[in-house]
Amino acid sequence: MSGALVEGKEHKDGEENMAAWLVAIKTLKIEPYHLPPLVAHIEQSSVNLGPHDVKVQIKALGICGSDVHHFKNMRCANFVVKKPMVIGHECAGIIEEVGSQVKTLAVGDRVALEPGISCRRCNLCKDGRYNLCPEMKFFGSPPTNGSLANKVVHPEYLCFKLPDNVSLEEGAMCEPLSVGVHACRRANISPETNVLIVGAGPIGLVVLLAARAFGAPRIVIVDVDDCRLSIAKNLGADETIQVSTNIQIIEVGVSQFLDRGQEVDVIGVFRYRNTWPLCIELLKTGKIDVKPLITHRFGFSQKGVEDAFETSASGRSAIKVMFNL
Amino acid sequence: MSGALVEGKEHKDGEENMAAWLVAIKTLKIEPYHLPPLVAHIEQSSVNLGPHDVKVQIKALGICGSDVHHFKNMRCANFVVKKPMVIGHECAGIIEEVGSQVKTLAVGDRVALEPGISCRRCNLCKDGRYNLCPEMKFFGSPPTNGSLANKVVHPEYLCFKLPDNVSLEEGAMCEPLSVGVHACRRANISPETNVLIVGAGPIGLVVLLAARAFGAPRIVIVDVDDCRLSIAKNLGADETIQVSTNIQIIEVGVSQFLDRGQEVDVIGVFRYRNTWPLCIELLKTGKIDVKPLITHRFGFSQKGVEDAFETSASGRSAIKVMFNL
Amino acid sequence: MSGALVEGKEHKDGEENMAAWLVAIKTLKIEPYHLPPLVAHIEQSSVNLGPHDVKVQIKALGICGSDVHHFKNMRCANFVVKKPMVIGHECAGIIEEVGSQVKTLAVGDRVALEPGISCRRCNLCKDGRYNLCPEMKFFGSPPTNGSLANKVVHPEYLCFKLPDNVSLEEGAMCEPLSVGVHACRRANISPETNVLIVGAGPIGLVVLLAARAFGAPRIVIVDVDDCRLSIAKNLGADETIQVSTNIQIIEVGVSQFLDRGQEVDVIGVFRYRNTWPLCIELLKTGKIDVKPLITHRFGFSQKGVEDAFETSASGRSAIKVMFNL
Amino acid sequence: MSGALVEGKEHKDGEENMAAWLVAIKTLKIEPYHLPPLVAHIEQSSVNLGPHDVKVQIKALGICGSDVHHFKNMRCANFVVKKPMVIGHECAGIIEEVGSQVKTLAVGDRVALEPGISCRRCNLCKDGRYNLCPEMKFFGSPPTNGSLANKVVHPEYLCFKLPDNVSLEEGAMCEPLSVGVHACRRANISPETNVLIVGAGPIGLVVLLAARAFGAPRIVIVDVDDCRLSIAKNLGADETIQVSTNIQIIEVGVSQFLDRGQEVDVIGVFRYRNTWPLCIELLKTGKIDVKPLITHRFGFSQKGVEDAFETSASGRSAIKVMFNL
Repeated sequence: MSGALVEGKEHKDGEENMAAWLVAIKTLKIEPYHLPPLVAHIEQSSVNLGPHDVKVQIKALGICGSDVHHFKNMRCANFVVKKPMVIGHECAGIIEEVGSQVKTLAVGDRVALEPGISCRRCNLCKDGRYNLCPEMKFFGSPPTNGSLANKVVHPEYLCFKLPDNVSLEEGAMCEPLSVGVHACRRANISPETNVLIVGAGPIGLVVLLAARAFGAPRIVIVDVDDCRLSIAKNLGADETIQVSTNIQIIEVGVSQFLDRGQEVDVIGVFRYRNTWPLCIELLKTGKIDVKPLITHRFGFSQKGVEDAFETSASGRSAIKVMFNL
Repeated sequence: MSGALVEGKEHKDGEENMAAWLVAIKTLKIEPYHLPPLVAHIEQSSVNLGPHDVKVQIKALGICGSDVHHFKNMRCANFVVKKPMVIGHECAGIIEEVGSQVKTLAVGDRVALEPGISCRRCNLCKDGRYNLCPEMKFFGSPPTNGSLANKVVHPEYLCFKLPDNVSLEEGAMCEPLSVGVHACRRANISPETNVLIVGAGPIGLVVLLAARAFGAPRIVIVDVDDCRLSIAKNLGADETIQVSTNIQIIEVGVSQFLDRGQEVDVIGVFRYRNTWPLCIELLKTGKIDVKPLITHRFGFSQKGVEDAFETSASGRSAIKVMFNL
Repeated sequence: MSGALVEGKEHKDGEENMAAWLVAIKTLKIEPYHLPPLVAHIEQSSVNLGPHDVKVQIKALGICGSDVHHFKNMRCANFVVKKPMVIGHECAGIIEEVGSQVKTLAVGDRVALEPGISCRRCNLCKDGRYNLCPEMKFFGSPPTNGSLANKVVHPEYLCFKLPDNVSLEEGAMCEPLSVGVHACRRANISPETNVLIVGAGPIGLVVLLAARAFGAPRIVIVDVDDCRLSIAKNLGADETIQVSTNIQIIEVGVSQFLDRGQEVDVIGVFRYRNTWPLCIELLKTGKIDVKPLITHRFGFSQKGVEDAFETSASGRSAIKVMFNL
Repeated sequence: MSGALVEGKEHKDGEENMAAWLVAIKTLKIEPYHLPPLVAHIEQSSVNLGPHDVKVQIKALGICGSDVHHFKNMRCANFVVKKPMVIGHECAGIIEEVGSQVKTLAVGDRVALEPGISCRRCNLCKDGRYNLCPEMKFFGSPPTNGSLANKVVHPEYLCFKLPDNVSLEEGAMCEPLSVGVHACRRANISPETNVLIVGAGPIGLVVLLAARAFGAPRIVIVDVDDCRLSIAKNLGADETIQVSTNIQIIEVGVSQFLDRGQEVDVIGVFRYRNTWPLCIELLKTGKIDVKPLITHRFGFSQKGVEDAFETSASGRSAIKVMFNL
């Protein structure tokens, strides 16, 4: 593979930084990736690391449903891929270099990366709801490049050091787990909340894991797929319901949960905010085990990337497909 | 009017207690109404007033949309009128008699009546969400008789004394106003909440009044009817939007409100709970004025009842139709 | 009054109901106790069971710190014992008789008793905060008689059926456990809340158990007593701190918890509300095990009562002293 | 350092920027102030304005109790003035220059300044509780210079454009008003909350104004000073209570508020967060009028500064002392 040369090499070791570029529908290419300086931390010098940034060697990255959407359709919801974009955002790695003001991280530290950089200036950011920031720059959400690459540059405050007993793969799983944690927070899950989960895909399963950690006394999960339900059972679902023509049966299952049916609240959830410390704590203390979710692993090569996305896109047998870089 | 005789007369003054019975679709009859002893406060004696009950002479009663539904269809949502039922539930009156244990009310007191008697034993009641009690007995919601009658018996704790400067009609308006207050509570309306109200009928308008009292800085209200919007304007709406084919235009109007669109919550609201003290306080201090909502008045006679329901059922010119008994 | 001793045996029909009366400082007498009809459910008949009441044979009862206060001082806080009073309130038993309207319980059912009967009419009751009801009648809180008796009459809605795998002693423990559960609810304990507990007595320990069930990731407990701290450790405290001159050392221990020191909230907690269903669920599912808290057991006899209160009053070696009746 | 006096006039290009330096106890000196580049937005160029910063000509600045503490004691709580420091933080002004990336503000805009710059990286900042950020840099809180100066540089996102009908003095009042707004938010003030305010100084009075805007139905305020209570009365207090030996009398006044005394919560409040937009809205719509709080005005000169602090420090006759620059 040739790959357009990158002016102004940034690798100290002389190697080029390679990334998985989504260039067309179902077409991913591993090509060089010149790490851009972060907009918010621009400097005039030739060094492209802002004072509060770190450079991370990505070591583990999981494929998300939204990555598959981009892969299949060059879009996900309203986000449209208009030009080649590095894909991926569920990742962890090792610190290779730190900016001049970085204080909490050092070269060699193993970190999980929170993938979204918000503006930190709007009222939503100031209010702590930065996941709703209209200027969010999010790994692999067009037009922002993702992190399926040898190396990325990221702000220190979005890189979270992993304890010794939490692996890099588990670090990468903090991203999907964060969706479950945020949902449970927003829904106020506690020992007083019975939980019904519709769908036992990766997100349904992380909601299950989080709901258990939040003390939910009884968790029922619904899916059409037997295999997924059996994973859910192993992860601790109290009951699983397989549906074919789904609505009516679900309603039966639901009825026992809706004791205050006339004042049900529907709570919107978008990604997550400020969840990494809690996810890492839950992994470290063993209250949550995400390892059973990782069903497939691939290396970071042209063929590995193609096979991995093929596997992830092909349907239900895979829960989480992970790259080891 | 003859009226089936009532065995075991309960009126001290010898007059029969008359009530408006819904006997068939669009057919209301004023007939005698023998006041039943309250189930929860049964006594073996011949007196049908429990120790914690009061007898109230109803003096003002407003017609609610649900009354009109019953009148037109003999049902409202899942509540079906299967046998003749006294209609009405938005009411206020004067205490005529008090039970042996009644301490806070005296004969002659003017009171507003909260119309629903919950079981006070289930977990929802214990938790303060008694409006969701599955055993609720609610005036004029089948099979429970309503309060469009000369007199009703009701528990002391659901009768709220009116201050001198709050009229009996305003007392009756506490019921619809409670819907607005409960909605604003559930939605956490405050000086930080812009409010969009879709529909300027009686409920839309009480939500408007309550939202203003809760400090909402900006209230926009939408309806197809010019006349209702002009009432809304007079009641303090900051902006009114008239719609014909409504969805698209509403969305335009809404867009400015939805700054955190991805995590919008939909909050269910059913009736109200524990709202009378606040409604009376808001009326007493003048923070809310419900009088402009009362557009029509009728007496309590066969013709009065027929005309009043006709007016209320005929459409949009009426906001609140009130009986003076 | 005869005062025939009851030797901790099941009370048979026709026998007198005996209770432990507090008659003077440190003086308890087992004497007959004529069960009063419940004020709220009074009937003229000779039967003293209201339609919504049940008669319960008490089988297990734990001694609370407040019982010991009454025993030692004839008062606890503002509650003063002015005449002989049956003591005790942490109890469970077996249904012996049910009122005419009782639907959820049957003779022979094993139940835990919530000891406080609120007025169910005031705004606090309507709002679900019935533990704050100014007219609360609470077992063994003067002037209301308690439940250290062969039998008591209690409202159906305050008696909670125990599952087969929850013992009567565990049922009695629902009362102190409720204090912990209510504290954790009020303090919003979750997987995001580190907890510091000052004092490892019975209440400190139930707070510890509840905090774990609510997902608290790290619980530190402080006491002067080694033995209590070792029980705390066994119950799952992450760290225990023994203090002699306590303030300064506690502050050191605390500092790591107070990351937002300038906006610490102090939340008042008084008893509990609506906690029995959750406590029973937590016991049934094994998420909480209260059995290690029961350190001493006594029979219900004059000597048993004297020895039990002596043990409980003498200091720190006892955690929970339990009667088996 | 020359120290040429500036006679409260608009500062013209080329003139030195002057500021009020606190150099010793009760010693303020107007001396030149070289504006530092903001740490977070450092650039190598000679221009000291970061891309997201603005330069503001200060036009109105109020003296706060904490300023007076610094003035009198060279410290306030744990914040100690160890070297000369520009004082002041309640301010508003006119934009003179904008950084290259500034989008929402333009030269000539009138703005109110939120005085604290948090790190925007720690968990507290991410969670929206940035007022508790341990790295907060706050105008006039040592060692950070304040804003009683002709000009200051500040981040765009902490400068809030004033509507035409809100004056610069009112803009400066957003700072103390924010304390009241934040307290009312934290305490969940609503039409259901009676409010008792102990102390009718500037902060007590802004709490009063905010509590009214949040719908509090009844506000009682307590002070030893007649004059302050009469201002409170004019601002809308429902009742004022003058106390001499204060505790006992306050308790009498309080008793009617504490209907749920056993579960009172004490909520800590530190400064404010994300309050300027709401304050400006409340001023713009006339729901709050802060003008009666401004009791004294001074120019920005050596004598003006000395007189102003003298007045503010001398006691109770002054509520808010304002500089016009």
